[in-house]
Amino acid sequence: MEKFIYLFSELDAAKASVEGDWDQVRTLLGGKGANLADMTRLEIPVPPGFTATTRACNAYLAAGGEFPPGFWEQEMEAVAALEQATGKGFGDPANPLLLSCRSGAKFSMPGMMDTVLNLGLNDEITEGVAAATGDPRFAYDLYRRLLHMYGSVVLNVPDHAFERAMEERRRVTGVGTEIEFTADDWKAVVEAFKAAIRTFAGREFPTDSREQLHGATEAVFRSWRGKRAIDYRRAAGIPNGLGTAVNVQTMVFGNIGPHSATGVCMSRNGTTGAEELEGDYLERAQGEDVVAGTRQTHPISMLRDRVPEVYEQLHDIARKLERHYRNMQDIEFTIEEGHLWVLQTRDGKRTAEAEVRIAVEMTKEGLITRDEALQRVSAEQVDAFLHPKLDPAAVGGREPLARGLAVSPGAAVGIIVFDADKAERLAKVDKRAVVLVRPDTKPDDVHGMLAAKGILTSRGGRTSHAALVARQFGRPAVVGVSAMEIDLVAGEARVGDIVLREGDPISLDGTRGLVYEGELPTVMADLDNPFLAELLGWADQVRKLGVRANADYPRDAERARHHGAEGIGLCRTEHMFFETDRLPLIQHMIMASDPADRDSALADLLPLQRSDFDGLFRAMDGLPVIVRLIDPPLHEFLPAHDELLLDLAGLKVQLQHLRSLPEIDGVLEQIGTKQRFLDRVESLREANPMLGTRGVRLGMLIPGLVRMQVRAIFEAACRCARDRVDVHPEVMIPLVTHVNELRTIRRLLEEEAHAVMAEQGIEVPYRFGTMIEVPRAALTAGELAEVAEFFSFGTNDLTQTTYGISRDDAEQGFLVEYLRMDVLPRNPFETIDADGVGRLMAWAVDEGRGVRPDLEVGICGEHGGDPASIELCHRMGLDYVSCSPFRVPIARLAAAHAALKEREEAVPRREAGTPQVLVS
Amino acid sequence: MEKFIYLFSELDAAKASVEGDWDQVRTLLGGKGANLADMTRLEIPVPPGFTATTRACNAYLAAGGEFPPGFWEQEMEAVAALEQATGKGFGDPANPLLLSCRSGAKFSMPGMMDTVLNLGLNDEITEGVAAATGDPRFAYDLYRRLLHMYGSVVLNVPDHAFERAMEERRRVTGVGTEIEFTADDWKAVVEAFKAAIRTFAGREFPTDSREQLHGATEAVFRSWRGKRAIDYRRAAGIPNGLGTAVNVQTMVFGNIGPHSATGVCMSRNGTTGAEELEGDYLERAQGEDVVAGTRQTHPISMLRDRVPEVYEQLHDIARKLERHYRNMQDIEFTIEEGHLWVLQTRDGKRTAEAEVRIAVEMTKEGLITRDEALQRVSAEQVDAFLHPKLDPAAVGGREPLARGLAVSPGAAVGIIVFDADKAERLAKVDKRAVVLVRPDTKPDDVHGMLAAKGILTSRGGRTSHAALVARQFGRPAVVGVSAMEIDLVAGEARVGDIVLREGDPISLDGTRGLVYEGELPTVMADLDNPFLAELLGWADQVRKLGVRANADYPRDAERARHHGAEGIGLCRTEHMFFETDRLPLIQHMIMASDPADRDSALADLLPLQRSDFDGLFRAMDGLPVIVRLIDPPLHEFLPAHDELLLDLAGLKVQLQHLRSLPEIDGVLEQIGTKQRFLDRVESLREANPMLGTRGVRLGMLIPGLVRMQVRAIFEAACRCARDRVDVHPEVMIPLVTHVNELRTIRRLLEEEAHAVMAEQGIEVPYRFGTMIEVPRAALTAGELAEVAEFFSFGTNDLTQTTYGISRDDAEQGFLVEYLRMDVLPRNPFETIDADGVGRLMAWAVDEGRGVRPDLEVGICGEHGGDPASIELCHRMGLDYVSCSPFRVPIARLAAAHAALKEREEAVPRREAGTPQVLVS
Repeated sequence: MEKFIYLFSELDAAKASVEGDWDQVRTLLGGKGANLADMTRLEIPVPPGFTATTRACNAYLAAGGEFPPGFWEQEMEAVAALEQATGKGFGDPANPLLLSCRSGAKFSMPGMMDTVLNLGLNDEITEGVAAATGDPRFAYDLYRRLLHMYGSVVLNVPDHAFERAMEERRRVTGVGTEIEFTADDWKAVVEAFKAAIRTFAGREFPTDSREQLHGATEAVFRSWRGKRAIDYRRAAGIPNGLGTAVNVQTMVFGNIGPHSATGVCMSRNGTTGAEELEGDYLERAQGEDVVAGTRQTHPISMLRDRVPEVYEQLHDIARKLERHYRNMQDIEFTIEEGHLWVLQTRDGKRTAEAEVRIAVEMTKEGLITRDEALQRVSAEQVDAFLHPKLDPAAVGGREPLARGLAVSPGAAVGIIVFDADKAERLAKVDKRAVVLVRPDTKPDDVHGMLAAKGILTSRGGRTSHAALVARQFGRPAVVGVSAMEIDLVAGEARVGDIVLREGDPISLDGTRGLVYEGELPTVMADLDNPFLAELLGWADQVRKLGVRANADYPRDAERARHHGAEGIGLCRTEHMFFETDRLPLIQHMIMASDPADRDSALADLLPLQRSDFDGLFRAMDGLPVIVRLIDPPLHEFLPAHDELLLDLAGLKVQLQHLRSLPEIDGVLEQIGTKQRFLDRVESLREANPMLGTRGVRLGMLIPGLVRMQVRAIFEAACRCARDRVDVHPEVMIPLVTHVNELRTIRRLLEEEAHAVMAEQGIEVPYRFGTMIEVPRAALTAGELAEVAEFFSFGTNDLTQTTYGISRDDAEQGFLVEYLRMDVLPRNPFETIDADGVGRLMAWAVDEGRGVRPDLEVGICGEHGGDPASIELCHRMGLDYVSCSPFRVPIARLAAAHAALKEREEAVPRREAGTPQVLVS
Repeated sequence: MEKFIYLFSELDAAKASVEGDWDQVRTLLGGKGANLADMTRLEIPVPPGFTATTRACNAYLAAGGEFPPGFWEQEMEAVAALEQATGKGFGDPANPLLLSCRSGAKFSMPGMMDTVLNLGLNDEITEGVAAATGDPRFAYDLYRRLLHMYGSVVLNVPDHAFERAMEERRRVTGVGTEIEFTADDWKAVVEAFKAAIRTFAGREFPTDSREQLHGATEAVFRSWRGKRAIDYRRAAGIPNGLGTAVNVQTMVFGNIGPHSATGVCMSRNGTTGAEELEGDYLERAQGEDVVAGTRQTHPISMLRDRVPEVYEQLHDIARKLERHYRNMQDIEFTIEEGHLWVLQTRDGKRTAEAEVRIAVEMTKEGLITRDEALQRVSAEQVDAFLHPKLDPAAVGGREPLARGLAVSPGAAVGIIVFDADKAERLAKVDKRAVVLVRPDTKPDDVHGMLAAKGILTSRGGRTSHAALVARQFGRPAVVGVSAMEIDLVAGEARVGDIVLREGDPISLDGTRGLVYEGELPTVMADLDNPFLAELLGWADQVRKLGVRANADYPRDAERARHHGAEGIGLCRTEHMFFETDRLPLIQHMIMASDPADRDSALADLLPLQRSDFDGLFRAMDGLPVIVRLIDPPLHEFLPAHDELLLDLAGLKVQLQHLRSLPEIDGVLEQIGTKQRFLDRVESLREANPMLGTRGVRLGMLIPGLVRMQVRAIFEAACRCARDRVDVHPEVMIPLVTHVNELRTIRRLLEEEAHAVMAEQGIEVPYRFGTMIEVPRAALTAGELAEVAEFFSFGTNDLTQTTYGISRDDAEQGFLVEYLRMDVLPRNPFETIDADGVGRLMAWAVDEGRGVRPDLEVGICGEHGGDPASIELCHRMGLDYVSCSPFRVPIARLAAAHAALKEREEAVPRREAGTPQVLVS
């Protein structure tokens, strides 16, 4: 006959039944049961008990709610063993054994924790307990707990029935909380609970102990099929066929007498990671009371002062469990009459900071290896180091005012300002912390965005101007806050009935996309944490992928290098144009009336671009710097179309009402200027700008722009080289679809670069490459590699074109619905779509390297900072990923994870890749 | 020693030298020389002569302008042979032999026809000719021609020098043209020409006949390197290394005496293809005079009446040449003193109509095979049958008023109307032929477009609304006429200084994209031409690709079937919504305030959609009909954003000036309506609508729309089936990117379809399929094929996303520049890009058929009517192409061409494919 019940002391038998596989032990006994048995073998003082297997659960459910043959007999034998071990009798009023009955699946399932405590009580036995302990209040408190839990878990009596009974008793006695209840109060409550059971379950509470245990065991088995459990498993991806185990354990009491207590304790500090016991306990209490928060708990350090020998015992147990499980432990304990019992242990929850410190220190203690330390810290945890965040204590359960897209992480707290100029003035002159709140932002607003602590927009998606600039400069931002109506004219932002005005305080959680009213406290970023630095150093030794940064300014480059970037993977030259003092120059270039006018505008831009490159090269001394030539459509540098249209209409109406000649002249001049802008904007206007005249297409139409940019790059590089800076410029062409584009631009570039180097009398090594950001570039990568020395995947655009999705539109619209409906398993703009985009990338890598074996291949889209995408890049054999300076540490760790995962899989690199590789 | 000179009678020797390869004979002797030798062997009366080989030309040029050793001696021997054959002496004043010297490359090169006639004349010999013929005017006329041609071709004397001398003589004599010149006048001209040569060449005209021939031969050799020739070869793709041959031939004279004449004649009618000699001749004239047009020519039929025996001889020769060359011939002839000489023969130029009739009749005469007949007619020639065209005679050399994109072929002539309502009224009520002229068109304008003969827009590209609707309904259209400024307020269209007003006549050539002022005559389409019908019947037997039509209405379906379509490959259901009476219903659906309101709007649309499908199924009895569910973004059905914005601004200004309450109420109501539209348009507005919420994404968000369309399809199908119509509906989902979209819609469809069939009590067979129009669909075709029973490539969109090009924008912008600069070899929206888009298609076909071997695969983009793309589809093994009803005949022929070409290449099907196929 199959063995369905294992005593906690029978771990070896359980292990033997599954050939010693610990994972299979957990499958069989559940996580909790396996750990209790494990602790028992370690001679940790665990109250005796036994586990009914998950196989019994499955058999019970398969039989339509019948214990499998022999099961109940085995359970009774196990109870007998407990009676023998404790010297007590289950159902014996004189010396009653009380038992708890808890579910325990392989994986922790918070939605399904069905528990019945104090099994074995009835009227008579309760009286016995009262007599034996001399504490009738204690005894009836235990009994009412049993009635409540049994009624609710086993007999489906609704909770409100019990609550009403308690409420009634509080009313009768006139006390505020049940802490003040006397034994008689509890006795009365017990009677009311029995009546509730009678009413709602249509039967009496069973007085027979074994019948109680039978019912509780069945209820736990049944709970596996409960709605909450099924929903949770679906969400967490836990298979339905696992079943739950049932753990039956001798009750111990922390609420019995003065030398009893109960508590939880972490083997290390869960906030800082320091090696010290941390936790709380309550004297004369049961476990629930610690969690309920109705009584003030004591810090665990007080236990050291009050009962040092028990504290030492607990400390030793914690160390022992850490050594055994090789991880920081979260331990539940009860002290019954001075005797320490451990009721549960599991890996402890901790902050990111603690995770890192514990991983590093455990490595040094020899508990775990460096690889394990790396694997233990997730990339997301590193992110927490990078940004200040709203103080979790202050946020608590507070409801946010509104939600939006979390496009740039971190917390920002300040007063609302609706105008970029005003934001700059308030920040710089009045030294106020401001949050810029706008319907959306434009290049005109960048100075205000930089001056602000954070940015909120009611419109726009992940690649909106606001989002890009915010991420670029590390300003926390929440965009697409569609519930917020921003009325710039009234100077108000409305969310439902709530009206916020300029100057009102507001707090943003850019990591989660939440907006709070008022000023919440924040906790600071800590990237210079020495434990993190050490861990990332280990990551660098393991990873094969290089990590570069996307940086447009010298100050970004310096930050990136400080964070460990090994070069610049993307410098977006147009961002330089968006600066307040430069925008008029680029506008002049766009509005130029003839080629000479355009050339003069380009000549004005040259020294500005040159000085930016100069700073970048110096900051990246010895490392490669990839400069991408201008990318966005020109209309982005001009005022918005609709604004011009309405301004003009307004001015024309104004004109009709003017009588003074100078006023009329003034308005006419404004009309002329606006009309010129509007004409140009209309001539540049495109139905689908994402697919329009941008990227290399601009350079093909305005070769002077390419020449100016190339000249600026090489003039800066030559000057740096003369100053003994080790410069490695790499010039990259965006949005290439056909090799002929690349040929044309390369010809231009070489002419100009050689001219500059000849003028400057110095040679600098450089490379010429292309972005791969439309499917055709990937499909014809072999041809492109004949001309390009490096590839960089622009996976934002490549995803847009491969899917035919405009990101800005979709993340406000159908894409959200698709993710909600599970039509798409994940957002392809966050994690590279391996089946579609990944397939194109793999094809491009193979084709490109087939033509040019030393082709350098990287990725500079936003996916470059996403761990899952980094793993894909590793598997495809890319040379590097490039991401925002703020995500460089994350990428370093994620790249190490990818390398370790591959090593573990121990299969040849390419075959293991997620994407199916297209080969010719 | 190499043989450099071949007499016309030495064809066998020439053939032997290149192992009998006729193409090599043409390489050696040039096309003209080879044909002259060929005719000589056929015993056609060709004046004796010889050819200097292209190898001699190359040797001459390689040596820096020296005849190769032995060349001149061979040429002199050949001259001696001519003297012997004619009994005349080259340079003999008593009995002079005159020779012509002409270039003759392998391929005809119009830019390089260097010719010198009448070699062998000088003062003395001219006197001899005058004496011998008794016609000094004739003799001096020949002499002045020699001086002019020799001076110009050999000595580089500028033409104006000769023209001035003629001018001077006309002035002196006071005659209008040189036809009235006497012998003395020509004598004076001869002296003036000699003086011109002296002045400009700095030397005397050589009087020695052999020196003349030497110079002429050299000049022809040199002409191969002339600028005109090099430019022409570059444009026509003719290799530079071929060289030209030189043909030296005995002069014959059609201008000597009353029984002489000269002319050109086609062996069949070049306009109709009828089997009859067609051409013109002139009595007493030289060949140049026929072409010059200075004298009225006679039709060749007059020759039959005047000199029947010569006519018969010419007729026999024409038949003989046709049989020999297996093609209709264009023959130059001269009658010298009653003796017929043939100077040249070549394949004759002809109209498309003639091409088809000749191909069919020659097949029946046994001259050529059916396959050859099919190959001889190009797909473009079939197009000419399909549309009325501007009468070529009337157009002549007339300059068009403006040019635009040729988006819908055919001619349209009518009066200009700027408004759709007015166009409809003028056409329907006043029965006027109108041309709708608009900046662009919108769904609101469709009724006016249908009423118009043709459409002109100043904006928009090949996929603009105007272009799509025009092509769909076969209305000739020219769009993107950017030179035309259309002022709707003033009711004027301006092109430069020319102002056209409403009611002014205008003519469009939609085949070429040309616009003419005034009313030009047209010639009618003739698709029922019996010869074409026969040829297309042969094509149907040869082709492997099916041909279907894109048709949205029963009348289109009938037309398509008449043109030979084997089903409907694409019915765009949204086009039904654009009809005037339906637009308000779809707008109601879009503007619906709640789900019930939306459902009621959908219910109103149901019977209209059903009746359209009903008609389609009946028209396509027995053939498949692919219905695509709604595709375009919803905002396309609403008024345009900018218009609403300005209308509102205008109404608000108006409001300020109103004093009467009812007026104010009226305007307020208008403002309310417009504002509601604007709000909805703004909520639907997308930065990149091409990549936005359209296609299947609409159906995912509004399942009711899918249900309504599916219900309409199946209700119609069931009704038809009950009427014994053989219905084959196939439902197609647009813009799919992920298999989950397909799964969701398929579930919806099956529910609804089965519900309808149960209600109607009848089952109809149907299929469910997907468009492949974004790269991800192609890349994941294997997954899609698990759910879809057929694929249809939407190559318009697939090209847009594969390239990252918005067609509407690009064809007005950078794409035009790219084509001009040869950055792209051809417009990928006209011919499928084999390297990029083609590669994705091939991958999708392989993956899809790998999963579902009987997967039906077709193409329904506009490429489906493009011959080069059809060939690609054939090579990829597609099942069918689907195109506009008007292009069905073209597709039938192009598909036959593809099959024949493949058969000729006689290599396995797939390997011969242009695209490199991706295999896993």
